[in-house]
Amino acid sequence: MGSAFSFPLSDAGQDVNLVGTHLDRDWIEEIRASGVHPKLKSKLPNKVVPFTHDQLDEALSNDTNLIVLGVSSPGVDWAVQQLGRLLKKPIPILMLTKGLMTHENTLHILPDIVHDGLASHGIKDVPVGAVGGPCLARELAARRDCCVVIACRDHKLLDWMLSLVTAPYYHARPSADIIGVEVCAALKNFYALAVAYPRGLAKKQGKASNGALLYSIEAGLFTQAMTEMRYLVNVMGGTTASVDGWAGSGDLYGTCQIGRNGQMGRLLGLGLTYQETKAKYMADDTIEGADLALTIGPTIEYLIEQQHLDGSLLPLTSTIIRTICHDQPMSIPTL
Amino acid sequence: MGSAFSFPLSDAGQDVNLVGTHLDRDWIEEIRASGVHPKLKSKLPNKVVPFTHDQLDEALSNDTNLIVLGVSSPGVDWAVQQLGRLLKKPIPILMLTKGLMTHENTLHILPDIVHDGLASHGIKDVPVGAVGGPCLARELAARRDCCVVIACRDHKLLDWMLSLVTAPYYHARPSADIIGVEVCAALKNFYALAVAYPRGLAKKQGKASNGALLYSIEAGLFTQAMTEMRYLVNVMGGTTASVDGWAGSGDLYGTCQIGRNGQMGRLLGLGLTYQETKAKYMADDTIEGADLALTIGPTIEYLIEQQHLDGSLLPLTSTIIRTICHDQPMSIPTL
Repeated sequence: MGSAFSFPLSDAGQDVNLVGTHLDRDWIEEIRASGVHPKLKSKLPNKVVPFTHDQLDEALSNDTNLIVLGVSSPGVDWAVQQLGRLLKKPIPILMLTKGLMTHENTLHILPDIVHDGLASHGIKDVPVGAVGGPCLARELAARRDCCVVIACRDHKLLDWMLSLVTAPYYHARPSADIIGVEVCAALKNFYALAVAYPRGLAKKQGKASNGALLYSIEAGLFTQAMTEMRYLVNVMGGTTASVDGWAGSGDLYGTCQIGRNGQMGRLLGLGLTYQETKAKYMADDTIEGADLALTIGPTIEYLIEQQHLDGSLLPLTSTIIRTICHDQPMSIPTL
Repeated sequence: MGSAFSFPLSDAGQDVNLVGTHLDRDWIEEIRASGVHPKLKSKLPNKVVPFTHDQLDEALSNDTNLIVLGVSSPGVDWAVQQLGRLLKKPIPILMLTKGLMTHENTLHILPDIVHDGLASHGIKDVPVGAVGGPCLARELAARRDCCVVIACRDHKLLDWMLSLVTAPYYHARPSADIIGVEVCAALKNFYALAVAYPRGLAKKQGKASNGALLYSIEAGLFTQAMTEMRYLVNVMGGTTASVDGWAGSGDLYGTCQIGRNGQMGRLLGLGLTYQETKAKYMADDTIEGADLALTIGPTIEYLIEQQHLDGSLLPLTSTIIRTICHDQPMSIPTL
């Protein structure tokens, strides 16, 4: 997604230095050789200059005015280390990485983790924005219409960030609610596991004698996911508007249509446990929604137990946590 | 759907008299002969007694305490005529029929049309409830999980109606917001035309060279549909909760996954006009969303023109009206 984001940046006239992590060395070499990104299967814009991870200091030129962070969520700590070591002044950051972290039984959004991490390296007051909404990397790299929300607490910076990615195929809306956008962006993967589940269950049960499948309950679970997402966003201090917008309803809808999280959900419908399903069908795939469940599941359970969260409002959340964290077969919760 | 609704009614212990319209004579005969509903491909519960339309007076026994109306939306006037002629006292009505009507440049929900229609026959104060939410008739007839909202302005009657359909597969939630539920139930078909459109457009354009399709904009349009639905529901006096619930988000999601409205939307993506598409691919099918556009389109255009509706908030609505009412090829609106 970091590489794909170079398309609207370039098309809006920005110079882009693209830095891989230590895991991306081969990709960076391939981009250097051919100009083509091997995963996106697209030629990157001419203005994009590729760098390997050990060249991060070179890539951070004196006139770098925005750092776009697109590492995987387990890579955030690594990225903070690298930037903490190299940055000499606070440069605004825009995060494409999605996820939530837990610390002392509290859920945190990644922009705050990055902000605080850099502060602990002595780089204070780095403004950190984030991007949510339905935007598949490959579609973005093909310059096909994408719908995003760019969130930043600072209105002026937000306007400026939006101006950096002006492109006809990049429908970007501003939001001051970075908490809401980030919680939605993370949870959509988590809930897609459950919304997709009936599709797999229908395969396992087979059609009813009259041909019926399980579309109605799938749709019902979509709404339940929205409802529980709305509750958690509100508890964490975000706004309902983010849930209603592209970051919430749009990205959840899209994630239920295509991608690995929905695929895992459908496979869970076949009746195996998560561990069995993962090992059997998706051993080499990252399932963000499941990883998120493993990260935040224990904290959510603790918060429910301590009555900081109302468990009766979270039947789908609890079902997903039982499935992923306690490896019990998935089932349709009582609605 | 009227016949399918006999399943939760029967399973909750109710006696059901099932009356066909004049168009359903063959079906009623077939149900009489075999017990099997030819369209649902399911054996109806034993407690269901079939009647032809000319036996409506017999079917309305002295202890009939609820009339469930499941005619098609153009059949509502006919149903009001029949009931207006036969009813001797006000009997509560529960509507499965979905749609909106226009009268003197105002949009009206069908329960109000029925209520007022019966009043004009001298049968005053008939309470009329309605059912929304994702519930495919065939899935209901297979006793597979369905998610519905039952709406009625009268709380006591609402509780009583819910008690009549208690069944483990029938997840029914109460709502006092009959306007919101009914507007959502009608508009979901209308908006599904546009949400499904990019899937067809992707077929027409083909995959991008990197394999990209158009899932991101489909997801973006889903959110846009929700946003415009929310606006129209609010303008008509309904509540946001209905849009967020099964009647709105759930049923729209489901309608985008399966059914004729989504199919028409995908076909519109191929680039023909609505009239051409209908004639070529779906000549014999009822496309509720398109029929609704033809019914309410001119009124919505008038209300926008008169600034009773804010057209700038309704780009997707306007696109659909242009496509269906003015037979212009569909396109992605400016978002």
